[in-house]
Amino acid sequence: MSKPTPLSGFPELLPEQRVVEQQVIDTLRHTFELHGFAGIETRAVEPLDQLLRKGDTSKEVYLLRRLHEESAEGHAGIGLHFDLTVPFARYVLENAGKLEFPFRRFQIQKAWRGERPQEGRYREFTQADIDIIGRDELPFHHDVEVTRVMVDALNRLDFLPAFRLQVNNRKLIQGFYAGLGVADTDEVMRIVDKLDKLPAEKVHAMLVAEAGVDAATADRVLSLATISAADDSFVDAVRALGVEHPLLEEGLAELGQLVRACADLVSDRVQVVADLSIARGLDYYTGTVFETRLEGYESMGSICSGGRYDALASDGRTTYPGVGISLGVSRVVVPLIARTGLTATRKVPSAVVVAVVSEESRPESEAVAGALRARGIPCEVAASAQKFGKQIRYAERRGIPYVWFPDQGEVKDIRSGDQVLADPATWTPPIDDLRPQVVTSSIEEKKQ
Amino acid sequence: MSKPTPLSGFPELLPEQRVVEQQVIDTLRHTFELHGFAGIETRAVEPLDQLLRKGDTSKEVYLLRRLHEESAEGHAGIGLHFDLTVPFARYVLENAGKLEFPFRRFQIQKAWRGERPQEGRYREFTQADIDIIGRDELPFHHDVEVTRVMVDALNRLDFLPAFRLQVNNRKLIQGFYAGLGVADTDEVMRIVDKLDKLPAEKVHAMLVAEAGVDAATADRVLSLATISAADDSFVDAVRALGVEHPLLEEGLAELGQLVRACADLVSDRVQVVADLSIARGLDYYTGTVFETRLEGYESMGSICSGGRYDALASDGRTTYPGVGISLGVSRVVVPLIARTGLTATRKVPSAVVVAVVSEESRPESEAVAGALRARGIPCEVAASAQKFGKQIRYAERRGIPYVWFPDQGEVKDIRSGDQVLADPATWTPPIDDLRPQVVTSSIEEKKQ
Repeated sequence: MSKPTPLSGFPELLPEQRVVEQQVIDTLRHTFELHGFAGIETRAVEPLDQLLRKGDTSKEVYLLRRLHEESAEGHAGIGLHFDLTVPFARYVLENAGKLEFPFRRFQIQKAWRGERPQEGRYREFTQADIDIIGRDELPFHHDVEVTRVMVDALNRLDFLPAFRLQVNNRKLIQGFYAGLGVADTDEVMRIVDKLDKLPAEKVHAMLVAEAGVDAATADRVLSLATISAADDSFVDAVRALGVEHPLLEEGLAELGQLVRACADLVSDRVQVVADLSIARGLDYYTGTVFETRLEGYESMGSICSGGRYDALASDGRTTYPGVGISLGVSRVVVPLIARTGLTATRKVPSAVVVAVVSEESRPESEAVAGALRARGIPCEVAASAQKFGKQIRYAERRGIPYVWFPDQGEVKDIRSGDQVLADPATWTPPIDDLRPQVVTSSIEEKKQ
Repeated sequence: MSKPTPLSGFPELLPEQRVVEQQVIDTLRHTFELHGFAGIETRAVEPLDQLLRKGDTSKEVYLLRRLHEESAEGHAGIGLHFDLTVPFARYVLENAGKLEFPFRRFQIQKAWRGERPQEGRYREFTQADIDIIGRDELPFHHDVEVTRVMVDALNRLDFLPAFRLQVNNRKLIQGFYAGLGVADTDEVMRIVDKLDKLPAEKVHAMLVAEAGVDAATADRVLSLATISAADDSFVDAVRALGVEHPLLEEGLAELGQLVRACADLVSDRVQVVADLSIARGLDYYTGTVFETRLEGYESMGSICSGGRYDALASDGRTTYPGVGISLGVSRVVVPLIARTGLTATRKVPSAVVVAVVSEESRPESEAVAGALRARGIPCEVAASAQKFGKQIRYAERRGIPYVWFPDQGEVKDIRSGDQVLADPATWTPPIDDLRPQVVTSSIEEKKQ
């Protein structure tokens, strides 16, 4: 077989890069579990009628067909899921009788979309979703909860760039438009959502031409969208525009509560900002909406989005309202690895290579390794009984910090050259050496 | 939407069942990392020419096609991988210049096969593979190593039934057949591999009719296949059959070494047995072969298989020999959940529900929860300020053992009813209560 080449849109990682992704996933899972979210997985496939309920994504679905299947329609009409929300809504309906509500779940899985690959957009990608689902009702404090959980998680990802979580509320926007007397609030919202791609004058013209509002109304619509604040001062800024509507009041109260409730979690790495231009397009959100920008990667768009949906799922008799956020793990990790050389301090979990004096004495080296593993220290035994200099090179090439010499009963830190007497029943490396650490290549090079 | 129904062959787990699967996966990963194996993932798809290299599985491949794609051939000829070996061989060739050999990797991922579903056989399933790959050569001690790693892992899965790891060596079989003067050793091996499904007389008749050996030779072929021992006494049993061949000697030496080297790891839960009937069919193995039976589930066949392949991958110039074992995670977990009610002590990670006295005082409950989480104790705040009796019921329904009353500064173990004064900055639950524990439903019911 000749050397295979990568498939565009299906990124794969080297072992030391996978350490970065795995650490992101582990940190997310740890945080979600601390907050009482249950981890589930759903199957990779859904019936096509489920996948195509939102018509606008239909082009991106991968259909499945068995190689020797007669039907050209695909295997019983199934395709790969393109997000984790559609499968989760189906899972809730299917298992409603066995779940306890409110149901907090996290789900970290791959999804697939057949769209054109670009930076941060892949055909196969990993997402990390959290949602809280109620039966019939779900109090607003859960909107605060999911926000706080995700901010907590992002704060813990301290090897990533800064995050800017932008929050808004569709009640606020729709109430404001209704107060202005706008007839088709959805159409206005759709056009305003283009503000991150088009200049304000162009959006203004579209509002007049396509949504049929007068120029003065379009001015006020755009004024609302320019309001942004890291605290609840946005409330006064909206009031100063002189529009009144009960739904607007409800939205202002909710968004104000959300921003105030997150104030204690805000750090130099994670900001929470009320940004009244955020609307999440044509999605099914009905209240709180989230988008998140990664500092230095704003052109990728939102890498962590979500919101409140008053009817995530319904079986006709019961409605399940929910609120959730989805972090694009691949969207964040893959471009960072490519652009900044984010990697790990070593290519293997091993903290120690136990040297082998001769093939006959390999069991003695195994015994040292066994004693270290029994105390949770990852290690490997050298592959062959070469000269010790070569066994040290073996460790170096993998970034393994320690080599153990069983014949001498000593362990060497090959970075400093320090070699000390050591007992495998008691010796422990410094905590930072126990597992591979995430670093950027430049830092790693400096260390060496 | 009406209530959705499950898709046959695509098993999904309830949150408390997912705890079981997650614990299996976590234990495997922890063990593999302790032994220095690097975790990687490969993309879910491979080019069809890769997937169809082994013609006999071609019927099972799922092809991908984008919904609006013109070509009926599928998207650029890609399909879902049906195991983790084919993708790994491709990954090694693609990244050979960036990997260090011998390369130890583990890979825990889903795979898909469009075959007819039955117990232990699914269309979507999770596998856990370990392999060690060399460049040009790979010493036999790595065969011992992968065996010991998997036995270590199985020993740690102490909530599962007992495992019986059956090992053999194809050099031993082929050498024995060659010493007997058998011309087509592969054909004899293929027929002998049917011994677990057909009676010995039938296999004997097939050996004579299809492989063209005489009755006396067929007798001796079957005699070899009946030999089985938990120690290296099988060597004398083979020698007693009076066949001689250099390849047979090599196989006997390797298999003897393997069984002796695993003796210290054998427990009442994990046996390692030399079983000379094991041949792994028509696979690409060239030396050591493994199969594993799960006690009480022998009808499912082998749930953990593998072996040595002298050419896992080759780019024409360089050959990459390897040795590996693959554990069928879904094959083990899903039937056990269905048959024995294997589950977790609770449906959520939370060890504690912090009660809410009134909606106004929710931040005080949040503060208690925050203090507990800061010390690694998973918890959740009650969803509403109901009467405490209802909040206790909320915890009970989820299996959460503790309820914290912030107004009283007390925590109650709702199983025993014991309630004590507690400080969220210092209180810690017993270690067994910190995370959900895996139990069978009957045990869980007894506890309650």
